[in-house]
Amino acid sequence: MGKKKKSNKVKPQLLKGFKDYTPKEQIARERMLSTIRSVFEMRGFLPYRTAALESAETLLGSHYNEDSLAELFGFCGPEEVDMALRYEFTLSLARFVAGNPDLPLPFRGYQYGPVFRVDKPGPGRYREFTQCDIDIVGSANLLADSEIIATMVATLEALGIERFKVRFSSRRILNGLIEFAGIPAETGPDVMRVIDKLEKQGREAVLQELGPGRTDKSGDKIPGLNLGDSQINEIDRLLTIAGTETDNPLAAAEQLLGEMAESVAGIADLRQILSHLSNMRVSSDKFGIDLTIVRGLGYYTGPVFETNLLDLPEYGSIFSGGRYDNLVDRFLNRSIPAVGTSCGLDRLLAALIELERISLRPCTSDVLVTVMDRDKLPEYLRIVAELREAGIATEIFQGDTKNLTKQIKYGDKIGVQFAVIAGSDEFDKGLVTVKNLSAGREMAQQVENREEWLKAEEVQQTIERAQLVEFVLKNRG
Amino acid sequence: MGKKKKSNKVKPQLLKGFKDYTPKEQIARERMLSTIRSVFEMRGFLPYRTAALESAETLLGSHYNEDSLAELFGFCGPEEVDMALRYEFTLSLARFVAGNPDLPLPFRGYQYGPVFRVDKPGPGRYREFTQCDIDIVGSANLLADSEIIATMVATLEALGIERFKVRFSSRRILNGLIEFAGIPAETGPDVMRVIDKLEKQGREAVLQELGPGRTDKSGDKIPGLNLGDSQINEIDRLLTIAGTETDNPLAAAEQLLGEMAESVAGIADLRQILSHLSNMRVSSDKFGIDLTIVRGLGYYTGPVFETNLLDLPEYGSIFSGGRYDNLVDRFLNRSIPAVGTSCGLDRLLAALIELERISLRPCTSDVLVTVMDRDKLPEYLRIVAELREAGIATEIFQGDTKNLTKQIKYGDKIGVQFAVIAGSDEFDKGLVTVKNLSAGREMAQQVENREEWLKAEEVQQTIERAQLVEFVLKNRG
Repeated sequence: MGKKKKSNKVKPQLLKGFKDYTPKEQIARERMLSTIRSVFEMRGFLPYRTAALESAETLLGSHYNEDSLAELFGFCGPEEVDMALRYEFTLSLARFVAGNPDLPLPFRGYQYGPVFRVDKPGPGRYREFTQCDIDIVGSANLLADSEIIATMVATLEALGIERFKVRFSSRRILNGLIEFAGIPAETGPDVMRVIDKLEKQGREAVLQELGPGRTDKSGDKIPGLNLGDSQINEIDRLLTIAGTETDNPLAAAEQLLGEMAESVAGIADLRQILSHLSNMRVSSDKFGIDLTIVRGLGYYTGPVFETNLLDLPEYGSIFSGGRYDNLVDRFLNRSIPAVGTSCGLDRLLAALIELERISLRPCTSDVLVTVMDRDKLPEYLRIVAELREAGIATEIFQGDTKNLTKQIKYGDKIGVQFAVIAGSDEFDKGLVTVKNLSAGREMAQQVENREEWLKAEEVQQTIERAQLVEFVLKNRG
Repeated sequence: MGKKKKSNKVKPQLLKGFKDYTPKEQIARERMLSTIRSVFEMRGFLPYRTAALESAETLLGSHYNEDSLAELFGFCGPEEVDMALRYEFTLSLARFVAGNPDLPLPFRGYQYGPVFRVDKPGPGRYREFTQCDIDIVGSANLLADSEIIATMVATLEALGIERFKVRFSSRRILNGLIEFAGIPAETGPDVMRVIDKLEKQGREAVLQELGPGRTDKSGDKIPGLNLGDSQINEIDRLLTIAGTETDNPLAAAEQLLGEMAESVAGIADLRQILSHLSNMRVSSDKFGIDLTIVRGLGYYTGPVFETNLLDLPEYGSIFSGGRYDNLVDRFLNRSIPAVGTSCGLDRLLAALIELERISLRPCTSDVLVTVMDRDKLPEYLRIVAELREAGIATEIFQGDTKNLTKQIKYGDKIGVQFAVIAGSDEFDKGLVTVKNLSAGREMAQQVENREEWLKAEEVQQTIERAQLVEFVLKNRG
């Protein structure tokens, strides 16, 4: 029986690629979300929320199959309907807008929450992660694209990040080139996907992949798009500009791509955005044109944005998006122009930690009231109530031990700032002892004689019971 | 081709039983969450977050099968692992605690987020809904149960609900009775499940279900537990007390159940909790003993709580929980005592709306800056920047129309408070017009002559451009 019981135990394991967040992490994530949401709301974006599960058609279009469903967390669910967890918000937003014809347009919305991807998990790369998106749906006005870029800048600044750059281009520039070179329109997305590798793989690799393909370092054969030499040369013209250090890439692009109407229109779009950003007084060192930006996703139609941290280039783009004027078409017999952007909360948190722009707090409580004498429980509970009424986050020790050292150790472990200590003696005299656990932890790292700092006034003080609230309010960090 | 294209369209539909939240709803939900989280943190609960997907074993134990998995949103996922969306937080919390032996105990945690159930959808009943949980894990101390109850009271009060009652009992009282009556321990959970129907079905129905079963109104046969008459009589003793109007149900219970050791212990537990709540100065009209409370879930072991809205009894319990001392056993070869409670955000929101304790705002923006003259865009954008810098949530009209009436109509639709209007004329004179759209909407409901209120000073005022920020700060709602 004992053996059988043991085999009934379930290992306390997470699914592969999933993660729990301890208070220390979750407190930081909540603070970040609060900052991000404040910036979004200050700039007129309204919160909305879509369902976490969607039909397979919504996420994959009408031509999905078992294989494409298995690339998501997809399954045949209740009522025999194929469904999957969302892997991003934009498709859900498109469905939401298409299904709510009364929604006033332009709709400026923000959404945050978990998305799910069956990626190979790695360091900092999880299968469930939190994204924050803003979108402006129902406007073809480039003021909207500019507002999105300006909000990206404002958000990162509000989070305390100083050295970053939002870089952007327009797909129209490349589309014009593709059309001019006589490359079939359906190959366009593949060309974008290959050029998207420029930063990581370099120009030679990209040119090879546009042509016959190449063999990578590990010996794997990467198939090419088999474009003709003249077609590849046309595309190379753009890469040449992109690779040139110039103060004015748009002028260079215009000179080279001037005969391609769609490219010229894309260049004009970017000039307009630059002008709006300047009028919005966004610092000019926080954004810039980069003609190599194309983004991997198929649905972008115009301006596309990426954001790099100057001190952590290895993070890649931490805030990305673009204009997607045809996405709502999946659901409606008409187009609704839209533009948006998305950032991953946890990658930003990792960056803030690495840049030392955030201090991780393990605890949101200010005070732990210890319990030395069970008979005095009414007194302890009165102290708790008083502190909470004054807006001081307070807990009473809930464990079963009466041992004060263990209670203090618990307070230290959870990271609370103060411990309140009182026995019959103190209560009789109208006194209470307050121990500054945070100060104690700091001093313990500095002094060698433990006995010494334990007695230090900064760490422990006996005060009038009536002064307790005032004392904590004055001394809390 | 046209036809084919049409068939490629995806209907913009949610899955059955799922829901999106528009800004109007989501703004209210965010405000509620903020209030709830403040109360939790003020009382020492720390935020944590567990994964939304769990292994089938974690949610269902080691003996799950295809059928029990299909009762959840369950499926065979990546790496051929059976998994499902969580249907509540408590099992995930138990896994989290079991898997994190370094977590300081007692752990006081809170979590909020979506849970998923394959229920039959109905009005206000969705398959994805947001729960808010608090738990104290690692304490057998009844101070913990009392803190949970006190926090339930504080949370509902902070949300503006006045007339509610947290009612509680202890499973130990009934366990003692079941043992005394010679009912096998494994039938205990079924007895609890039947007694849980008392409020809805009445005493006669419960007694029949404890015995041979009954036929309900629709003619459906409900099987009984086939307990013996003497066993049913023992249980009826408890129902008799519960049905008696008495100021002191615990004294009555003691008189009737005095010979059952476990019942007596349960009664003593409840007395202790009453004493703690009194010491915590929780208003005595906000809680009370109700010996009919048992809760349906199998894992409760001690005190169990429910909360009813006195003015909306049809809502059933809106905040429920209890002590579950053996749940972590699923994962560990030892017990960790725990107690917690849970509320559903959207049922609470529905109640707040019905009780008129919340005003729904459609918009978080204060000001819409209209664009009459594109050449003046730098001026409009300067106004936007100034307002935002002063902490006034502001957006500029992003649509493609120059028509002022349409822009104002848009502002009215999204529910923004002020519209700022300026043309070349105003800019030249250093003036700006501010239209109070909210006041306009209110007055439109009161006066008959539309022309009249359009001219009213309260609705529209032309002021000095330099006074704009001050004017909005002074007049915003």
